Amino acid sequence: MVLARRCGNIYKDDMRNLKLTIEYDGGDFSGWQVQTDRRTIQGELLRVFAELADGEVKIIGAGRTDAGVHAVGQVANVLLSTDHGLDVIRKAVNAKLPDTILVRQAEEADLSFHARYDAKSRSYRYIFITKPTALWKKYYHYTRGPVDIDAMRKAVKELQGYHDFTSFATVGDARSSWCRVMRAELLENGPLLTISLKADRFLYNMVRTIAGTVLEIGRGKDLNIRQVIEARDRRAAGPVLSPSALYFMEVEY
Amino acid sequence: MVLARRCGNIYKDDMRNLKLTIEYDGGDFSGWQVQTDRRTIQGELLRVFAELADGEVKIIGAGRTDAGVHAVGQVANVLLSTDHGLDVIRKAVNAKLPDTILVRQAEEADLSFHARYDAKSRSYRYIFITKPTALWKKYYHYTRGPVDIDAMRKAVKELQGYHDFTSFATVGDARSSWCRVMRAELLENGPLLTISLKADRFLYNMVRTIAGTVLEIGRGKDLNIRQVIEARDRRAAGPVLSPSALYFMEVEY
Repeated sequence: MVLARRCGNIYKDDMRNLKLTIEYDGGDFSGWQVQTDRRTIQGELLRVFAELADGEVKIIGAGRTDAGVHAVGQVANVLLSTDHGLDVIRKAVNAKLPDTILVRQAEEADLSFHARYDAKSRSYRYIFITKPTALWKKYYHYTRGPVDIDAMRKAVKELQGYHDFTSFATVGDARSSWCRVMRAELLENGPLLTISLKADRFLYNMVRTIAGTVLEIGRGKDLNIRQVIEARDRRAAGPVLSPSALYFMEVEY
Repeated sequence: MVLARRCGNIYKDDMRNLKLTIEYDGGDFSGWQVQTDRRTIQGELLRVFAELADGEVKIIGAGRTDAGVHAVGQVANVLLSTDHGLDVIRKAVNAKLPDTILVRQAEEADLSFHARYDAKSRSYRYIFITKPTALWKKYYHYTRGPVDIDAMRKAVKELQGYHDFTSFATVGDARSSWCRVMRAELLENGPLLTISLKADRFLYNMVRTIAGTVLEIGRGKDLNIRQVIEARDRRAAGPVLSPSALYFMEVEY
């Protein structure tokens, strides 16, 4: 059984696998992944699902977001044994979770469904704010000074395609540093400037480093995204920007 | 001298009076007014202005916002003695303030200018969000369930005019409970519903109580704003809603 192998566990006959779509405020947690002494999103979910399940509960997220990173459409699968209907489960769980975590959707999934391994694409947004403000500090990254939006738009577009993203990764990825970027665009909405990316996979700190590089280009630094990619050298790219302007938007299967 | 009387102080000959327009994130402070053991907006301003002034500094705000309440356009006047230019002062102060307080503007004002007593009108916004979300908890009030926006719009409009707002005040106002509401409208912008009010004065908790009453009307409660006003009884109105969806927008002189 694929699932048993993947999770290193043998499950009971009445085991169910639920696919959850989850929104959360990353500023309220020490990231996704469960930790013994800190409040994490996976930890909170485990706690509340354990209350309504018989026996062990496993939760696998599509992406292990860092502290501060928000999610609008994180996907997780939860393996558990319970007789409750989907709607009852979703409501009970939302009532017990902190109000900065919201299970938007709960669906019945095949027992073999794995939120991380089965993902075909993930989408992220990085949101800049171009005017100084004392508000929304945990949601946007202030560009500080004038930026050349056309140069930023052009740079973002050049990310599209199948590239080796070594230059944008904080640590090497054991498997590969190649990612297929299916969508890369810069959206403008009043004082908000959003980098919207969709790829088959992302390396560690990749979106935040892309954001740092694109902002440097916007500020007039003589950097060419193509050349940064081709350098395959972390030092060729810009800085890693703050996690709090990063949003995990969607996962496709 | 009017000013000396108002502030109970005699000022030096080189005293200046600066008019400041200030933005802040109320979630970060224990309200506007200085307190010995808590971080407040006035307290932070006093601290940083004291560093660049010779001698005593006084700061008077147009409105003493509660903890949680945000400001986009709070106005304060600061009495101080310094030789620095306005731009130097504003930049120095912003560099030293927490990033959740921003002095947007600093102007030279007449020594007699008093931010609170001289205000002709104040504007506030109360912002609802109509869809459930785990994000922006400290910025919007979730309406929870369907609301009748037309009923809410009608109710808000009826606030306009010169009325006794006793029903909407948490504590009695020693001077008067009559306020002239010059603007009262409900604005819609995607999932955001905003009550926008402008009046010559506001009573304590008035906007938050108006918000609670208007929301009850939106939820179908058989309440009529005119009747609530005429009751002149706090019990006739709805609950005081959370401070964190309240924004102090503007002061006119």
